[in-house]
Amino acid sequence: MQVDKLLSHIEKSEKKLIDRLIEFLRIPSISTEKTYASACRDAANWLTKELSTVGFKSKTYQTSGHPIVLATAGNGSPHLLFYGHYDVQPIDPLDSWDRPPFEPIVKNCPDGKIISARGASDDKGQLLTFINACEAFFKLSGSFPCKITILIEGEEESGSPSLPDFINNNKEALKADYALICDTAMWNPSTPAISTMLRGIISDEIILSAANKDLHSGMYGGPAINPIKELAKLITSLHDIDGRIKIKNFYKDVPFSPKTKKQWDSLGFSSKKFLSAVGLGTPAGETGFSALEQIWVRPTCELNGIWGGYTGEGVKTVIPAKAYAKVSFRLVGNQKPDEIRQEFRNHLRSQLHPDCSLSFISKDKGAKAINISEESILVKKAHDALQDEWRASPVYVGCGGSIPIVSLLKDCLNLDTLLVGFALDDDNIHSPNEKYSITSYIKGAKSWVRIISSLAN
Amino acid sequence: MQVDKLLSHIEKSEKKLIDRLIEFLRIPSISTEKTYASACRDAANWLTKELSTVGFKSKTYQTSGHPIVLATAGNGSPHLLFYGHYDVQPIDPLDSWDRPPFEPIVKNCPDGKIISARGASDDKGQLLTFINACEAFFKLSGSFPCKITILIEGEEESGSPSLPDFINNNKEALKADYALICDTAMWNPSTPAISTMLRGIISDEIILSAANKDLHSGMYGGPAINPIKELAKLITSLHDIDGRIKIKNFYKDVPFSPKTKKQWDSLGFSSKKFLSAVGLGTPAGETGFSALEQIWVRPTCELNGIWGGYTGEGVKTVIPAKAYAKVSFRLVGNQKPDEIRQEFRNHLRSQLHPDCSLSFISKDKGAKAINISEESILVKKAHDALQDEWRASPVYVGCGGSIPIVSLLKDCLNLDTLLVGFALDDDNIHSPNEKYSITSYIKGAKSWVRIISSLAN
Repeated sequence: MQVDKLLSHIEKSEKKLIDRLIEFLRIPSISTEKTYASACRDAANWLTKELSTVGFKSKTYQTSGHPIVLATAGNGSPHLLFYGHYDVQPIDPLDSWDRPPFEPIVKNCPDGKIISARGASDDKGQLLTFINACEAFFKLSGSFPCKITILIEGEEESGSPSLPDFINNNKEALKADYALICDTAMWNPSTPAISTMLRGIISDEIILSAANKDLHSGMYGGPAINPIKELAKLITSLHDIDGRIKIKNFYKDVPFSPKTKKQWDSLGFSSKKFLSAVGLGTPAGETGFSALEQIWVRPTCELNGIWGGYTGEGVKTVIPAKAYAKVSFRLVGNQKPDEIRQEFRNHLRSQLHPDCSLSFISKDKGAKAINISEESILVKKAHDALQDEWRASPVYVGCGGSIPIVSLLKDCLNLDTLLVGFALDDDNIHSPNEKYSITSYIKGAKSWVRIISSLAN
Repeated sequence: MQVDKLLSHIEKSEKKLIDRLIEFLRIPSISTEKTYASACRDAANWLTKELSTVGFKSKTYQTSGHPIVLATAGNGSPHLLFYGHYDVQPIDPLDSWDRPPFEPIVKNCPDGKIISARGASDDKGQLLTFINACEAFFKLSGSFPCKITILIEGEEESGSPSLPDFINNNKEALKADYALICDTAMWNPSTPAISTMLRGIISDEIILSAANKDLHSGMYGGPAINPIKELAKLITSLHDIDGRIKIKNFYKDVPFSPKTKKQWDSLGFSSKKFLSAVGLGTPAGETGFSALEQIWVRPTCELNGIWGGYTGEGVKTVIPAKAYAKVSFRLVGNQKPDEIRQEFRNHLRSQLHPDCSLSFISKDKGAKAINISEESILVKKAHDALQDEWRASPVYVGCGGSIPIVSLLKDCLNLDTLLVGFALDDDNIHSPNEKYSITSYIKGAKSWVRIISSLAN
């Protein structure tokens, strides 16, 4: 099958492919909130049906959480395993959206056409680029150039609790030669990127308890410990004045890599531009590191949420019984999620006021950071395919985000993963007004046609 | 009219008086939440009607907030002005209540009968003790021993924003000889108390803004400032290691009063018992002061609420754009609410990260602390009347809470206020499962009969 015909088929199908994405985006598959469980089922069933129409044997598998879709097609070597996720982030704060997050719209913007909705970029639009590429092979030739397995989960945004068991129970079906994932970004709108480094992650939820009930701040204010003040103190104790994390042993597995630093300096990354796009101007991380280093190779400890006491309208003079926070760490090098979590909890416990107690909720095991060799056949072939499609040399980048599946595939199946994605920095993933560029959507599918063809040869 | 007959009338009316309170408690008059505005109107109208049946000329006055009830009866000197409030605190956390907060119930407990519902003690039960006393005069003699004016507002729990204007516009009607308030506590279940010191209050709400949108903690974690961490740092900066408040000029109007300290030492107050009743054991306020001093004569800065980022179920790896907190200060001596608010805001602003901005919301003007002389006729007559009713010598106490009306009555009408109340420390005011003792309710009314009779002689 000539690649050119496949590419031109995709270009001619633009309208149909956009309609497919719109249908998918209408399903409000937020994995982290229980009320959306049936929407997650709908998204899984929609994918299974859609994959059947493009030549795959596809099935929805129940888990103790949201369902997983597994589909297979084609024969021959290499066996490619594509991973994606149909679940999306929560939509709050809702009043910051220009329109309802699950009513997708295609708009013309100064930089080209976009589609706007929750999940447009992360990861519904991105995962469809691969399915659209597969469809081109199937529609034009009735077959596939090699064996392709597609695995799509619905719990990526909430720590993938069901995925490890599923992978362990389906090792035979999943034992591929390479893994492919489309959940990362371009370097810029005209330059593709291959992500060779991913930060790991571990998250935790803190419950700090003080009095056995909410107290009146007049009657108890003074002698009674205030858990909000205590929580603030604990949070403040996590960083020193230079932005370094003060938890014991935190940096023992963090490498120092001056070679990589030199490569990155040549990318011409402007931390000023990067920050000003979101209304900021002063790098706030560890002193002594560039913004790019801070995102790609330095670990972080971020507060993702905090609450306690009266948060409604007006005044309530209460000293609450409890205060809460959600924390997550981005990990690099050889940092081990379990160890970091343990040291973090010890750090907080060691400073606790005697009238307070701490408990923790964690629903995921976290993931170690990932490093992929730029010298592998997989990365080299992808590099050339992307260069052909975009007429620009792809750059090797780090990624501040975490894709735990990559460690899982390495650990369980000894698989190397190619991380190629077509998101843009201004896609507002995890934020209001998420969008995906139609150029990314169409040229993304064409890129996969080229990569699959190259790997199959 | 013989006092004994009045007292025995109240005792015989117990069932009817409890039914009156139950009816009142069924009205969910939470002033601080807009959805309960119509319930506040209902409570005001209920009071106006009830006061008419016990011999008062009564009227509901509209304000820009919740209505105010003003009622008058009797003639002659002295003119007594009673103040109360029909509004109640919010009911969260709702799942900590044993039963619906606005479905009152009378129960037998080891220490006697109680009535349980939001507002039972603060202030619906307490204010009815005075109305029940008035009813006794009216039912038995058809008249009152002196002129009595009753002023009941519906915004006490949200800073009384409409009250100052109302008082200024109705000076003639309110110009009394003494003010009486029933919104404070007994020393213990068998010993009445007269509150001669009240802390003042000022509250503020902080909005800390950083990026112009919520950010992905993988893509921005490191260089992007996290407003939750910044807010925690600002909160932590408010106190030093000894629990002293670090705001500039904060203590300049705080008196040091060793004489009072000596009196209090003789009260046998156990800070251990006081704290252990709410599950605490270690005084957390300023070192060098007893728990009683910390509550009665030392100022505080408390966090009443905090929120920001993702607070739902599960994980969301976000760096939020904003974080929020509610703060209130208890004031003593001659501390001025406006000055404290200004210095507080300056304190936060002076330490702010350059990528953050602060804004503040305040809906009330606050109130200065109050000190009332134990040598006045008003306090002395009340002392003897209480002693007769309770067969125990009343103690003069401070009160950690704030009753802004007391300053208002002093400033606008040059009125001295008698603060006598029958609440108990375990009434759970501002907390789930609020209750009021039936003994307080009945003997409270009898106490007012004695006080009114004594003042009218």
